[in-house]
Amino acid sequence: MGSFNKDEVERVFSSAPFIADLGLEPVSIESGECRSRLVLANRHLQQDGFVHFGVQATMADHTAGAAGASMAKPGQIVLTSDFSLKLLRSAKGTHLECIATVLKAGSSLTVVESEVYCGTVDDMRLVSKATVTLAVVSPRSDS
Amino acid sequence: MGSFNKDEVERVFSSAPFIADLGLEPVSIESGECRSRLVLANRHLQQDGFVHFGVQATMADHTAGAAGASMAKPGQIVLTSDFSLKLLRSAKGTHLECIATVLKAGSSLTVVESEVYCGTVDDMRLVSKATVTLAVVSPRSDS
Amino acid sequence: MGSFNKDEVERVFSSAPFIADLGLEPVSIESGECRSRLVLANRHLQQDGFVHFGVQATMADHTAGAAGASMAKPGQIVLTSDFSLKLLRSAKGTHLECIATVLKAGSSLTVVESEVYCGTVDDMRLVSKATVTLAVVSPRSDS
Amino acid sequence: MGSFNKDEVERVFSSAPFIADLGLEPVSIESGECRSRLVLANRHLQQDGFVHFGVQATMADHTAGAAGASMAKPGQIVLTSDFSLKLLRSAKGTHLECIATVLKAGSSLTVVESEVYCGTVDDMRLVSKATVTLAVVSPRSDS
Repeated sequence: MGSFNKDEVERVFSSAPFIADLGLEPVSIESGECRSRLVLANRHLQQDGFVHFGVQATMADHTAGAAGASMAKPGQIVLTSDFSLKLLRSAKGTHLECIATVLKAGSSLTVVESEVYCGTVDDMRLVSKATVTLAVVSPRSDS
Repeated sequence: MGSFNKDEVERVFSSAPFIADLGLEPVSIESGECRSRLVLANRHLQQDGFVHFGVQATMADHTAGAAGASMAKPGQIVLTSDFSLKLLRSAKGTHLECIATVLKAGSSLTVVESEVYCGTVDDMRLVSKATVTLAVVSPRSDS
Repeated sequence: MGSFNKDEVERVFSSAPFIADLGLEPVSIESGECRSRLVLANRHLQQDGFVHFGVQATMADHTAGAAGASMAKPGQIVLTSDFSLKLLRSAKGTHLECIATVLKAGSSLTVVESEVYCGTVDDMRLVSKATVTLAVVSPRSDS
Repeated sequence: MGSFNKDEVERVFSSAPFIADLGLEPVSIESGECRSRLVLANRHLQQDGFVHFGVQATMADHTAGAAGASMAKPGQIVLTSDFSLKLLRSAKGTHLECIATVLKAGSSLTVVESEVYCGTVDDMRLVSKATVTLAVVSPRSDS
């Protein structure tokens, strides 16, 4: 595992109230890649018993943000600019897992792909795939 | 206000646990258009104090689903197939509002646009815009 | 019609070989909005006799670029960063028209929506809608 | 190489006038994957000397369509429904190559990813990546 911006990645996971509320947990983090996990409960479902799109989107986005943040320079943060997600299969199971991988890290824009898997521990299937563009900014800069 | 599938739209809002958990409320519903509202709390924020992308995405998606469901035939449901969202401005304020409008209602796919506004009651600004493709299915059909 | 970067918009249309080759023509340009037109020929079609996606995408993108360029500062150019398009109906007819409108002009990113219409002069229908994110750069800057 | 719908894939490449006009050629086709190539000329460029977005989009879309068609049942055709593309780097070089891979083949929707590379024969770089949703239809069906 090479050097990476560990402080910023930890802050992204530990200081986001919506992520704590949802129950999303980091599993592993290295430069340009982040994995996360979510133990599913009834409150994560939509009206037909499937995992709500919003849960998958939040996980895909936030894990992508952590992957992008891992490659940011000290003092820089990343903010989602553009997000697109395809739902490939209905999501049912006991938990979700997400793998986010940086496709291109740029000085102002970073593009990350996130895959979301759902099922039981021994039988996880790809249920959605997202592409996330992150704006790389310095907190005092004007956006 | 013309005739529309009121039962299905009400079910979409009242029977989705993640939506109740988030606090999303319908404001008005008619054929092909749905408006919703969310009173913001600290738990809806990300690590820099802005409204989390996932909150906006959930609202944009679910309100689009209700707008699409309003035009579904009896017995049909809609499921998100594809979702893309642009974040236009950082979102800060006391509440969010969303307006979802059907762009094209088809027999198998319906396309909806959702605009998300954030701010205070007297000063709301467009913060994100989504395009949502919904698959129109009969619950017993094979997807 | 307010002041706008007329020189840059004219260059966008007159100096792009692929646009001349395709036959795309500007119809009207003002600050934040551009309209264009294309007279259809057999060479614009795909294998089933409909207008090829690539023709619609090129038109939606280039017209969006001109709309974005109209709001650029002197010396700045815009480059497509992200493009998404929904095909709403099969496109058949004698010509295409496109209206591109700036949704948000930023210092580094500009978001534009493009609507593409197809049909005959008296009967044009919306066939596709695109959202285009443009990076606003200075030609000597490093991207 | 397994069995696949070779007739439909060949038709997709040989019977599309816009593809012949552009100069796009198939390189290899198997079930669920298609590769194509384009020798670049001045007419493929935009106003700043880069390969026009529309050329890359056409290539990404059409190669995705061929990959999707390779998995279609006899009598079925695929039509682009949704297309999104990220431009990762400015494209300059002597030719383009595209690899399209089916991510999920469904009975009504197929999702394909396309990677576009640009450069010289010995030095090709990934310049854009697209996700394409194809509607799988029978030509006589109502869309």
